[in-house]
Amino acid sequence: MVFNDVVKNVVEGTRGALASLIMGTDGITLSSFTKEGTVMDMEVIGIEYANMLTDVKKASESLDTGDVNEICVTTEKFVILLRTVTKEYFFAMAIAPSGNIGKGRFLLRVNAPRISREL
Amino acid sequence: MVFNDVVKNVVEGTRGALASLIMGTDGITLSSFTKEGTVMDMEVIGIEYANMLTDVKKASESLDTGDVNEICVTTEKFVILLRTVTKEYFFAMAIAPSGNIGKGRFLLRVNAPRISREL
Repeated sequence: MVFNDVVKNVVEGTRGALASLIMGTDGITLSSFTKEGTVMDMEVIGIEYANMLTDVKKASESLDTGDVNEICVTTEKFVILLRTVTKEYFFAMAIAPSGNIGKGRFLLRVNAPRISREL
Repeated sequence: MVFNDVVKNVVEGTRGALASLIMGTDGITLSSFTKEGTVMDMEVIGIEYANMLTDVKKASESLDTGDVNEICVTTEKFVILLRTVTKEYFFAMAIAPSGNIGKGRFLLRVNAPRISREL
């Protein structure tokens, strides 16, 4: 399945990447991949970020700043990258702060249309 | 005043930057600067993002991912960069999508401690 391939490929292609997932804005996972030996629950993180994305979209509408394409949150333990795929789905990845964030952003951006075509 | 200098310098030092502000997480502005000829209300954007920052901090606490250092939201019209300065204050900048986002991130990061020392 293309979704399973994509979530695996972006993690394996990004130095420091820990996990990725494709999730509905309702918090239901379509596909996810977590690197072996990683102790994190990407699904729980995804659900929190699905809520956040909904809030940011509402803010963006009320501010008339157009559609939200990407969100990047840097915390002490992770960098969470989130890219909107369609109105109903987003694609997210967790990367260690020392990882290659730029490569992660690039891979989410180029793979989002591939996911979009299958939805 | 150092705050007024900092908000002006980061905008003038970043290609494509439109406005910046230092705001309390309660949505009250400490200092702001908007480039001449820019039709945007950075304060209104700041207030929306103050709410978002509070939500992201709560999410980060419940996920145990540590303090939130930076948020970057890319919409069709702007890139909004936000850097936490202290628990009570953040530093934000709006940049055109074609601007130098990397330079903006850098300037927020290096100037945040300067602001922090004065708070």
